[in-house]
Amino acid sequence: MHGYTDKKGDYLKRLSRIEGQVRGISRMVDEDVYCIDILTQVAAVTKALQAVSIGLVEDHLGHCVVDAARKSPEAGAEKVREAAEAIARLVRS
Amino acid sequence: MHGYTDKKGDYLKRLSRIEGQVRGISRMVDEDVYCIDILTQVAAVTKALQAVSIGLVEDHLGHCVVDAARKSPEAGAEKVREAAEAIARLVRS
Amino acid sequence: MHGYTDKKGDYLKRLSRIEGQVRGISRMVDEDVYCIDILTQVAAVTKALQAVSIGLVEDHLGHCVVDAARKSPEAGAEKVREAAEAIARLVRS
Amino acid sequence: MHGYTDKKGDYLKRLSRIEGQVRGISRMVDEDVYCIDILTQVAAVTKALQAVSIGLVEDHLGHCVVDAARKSPEAGAEKVREAAEAIARLVRS
Repeated sequence: MHGYTDKKGDYLKRLSRIEGQVRGISRMVDEDVYCIDILTQVAAVTKALQAVSIGLVEDHLGHCVVDAARKSPEAGAEKVREAAEAIARLVRS
Repeated sequence: MHGYTDKKGDYLKRLSRIEGQVRGISRMVDEDVYCIDILTQVAAVTKALQAVSIGLVEDHLGHCVVDAARKSPEAGAEKVREAAEAIARLVRS
Repeated sequence: MHGYTDKKGDYLKRLSRIEGQVRGISRMVDEDVYCIDILTQVAAVTKALQAVSIGLVEDHLGHCVVDAARKSPEAGAEKVREAAEAIARLVRS
Repeated sequence: MHGYTDKKGDYLKRLSRIEGQVRGISRMVDEDVYCIDILTQVAAVTKALQAVSIGLVEDHLGHCVVDAARKSPEAGAEKVREAAEAIARLVRS
């Protein structure tokens, strides 16, 4: 059981839509669509991926981190350190 | 002919790899992989998409914008305005 | 008492360095320094600000969120929702 | 003469406002304001800095890059390469 387990179906649906959007960008490149229109589409997919990340972070904090904190302050602290590193990677990407 | 036309094969290869990575994330979600490991993978795909964008911007500037500028300063200015908007969307995404 | 209280001196030092860096960029603009060199400096300040944000998020999770979670699951959930919104603003900025 | 020279006064005004905002964040930290409110303010300053960068990139493309392209395709290509690196640093920051 992880933070996202309850919403697995929702995440799978969003990821499959993102996969389709990436395939759509390949098609645009293949059909010589104008660069700027491709860039707009790449920005849209990037945003959709970031929304998935933000959702996963929230679910992780709300389950894994809260549960660990309720076990012991030390367990909470360790999970927080790990989550903070993942958040840093997101902010910097 | 667009900025990216010369490198079409390269872009298609990168996009198909990204599509595979997104499919891999779906598999991770489906197999209940630990949230933080999924987040690491989502950050990697986001970075790969940004690299595609940066490449497309460079190709666009080097072809469409430079060609327009060589036709007339006005044509150059118009292409620059359009490119700047696309760059702004990238920086903000 | 907040998450960052223990490290107040450290944050104040970093913020005062960032303030000086912004003043340095004004000086560069005023002295007609080459655009690209100014952009490099703006990117450095943006990174420094993001590092402050990431630190604040980690301190917040490690104190306010963990403490709330230890009081009650509901209190933890509320703090997580608030933190997730702040993280979303960071990722999108 | 650089891309931003015409708008120097405008950039100096924006940078001085950003400097004041950073000083405001220091004051918030010093007065123990709630972490989340500080984070909101840091995100606002990050956005303001990004807007300055985007403006500088647009001015740079519209002047230095267009002028170089009009001198020779080679000069244009060199300026584009340099601009693309600066844009990459922005997108990644």
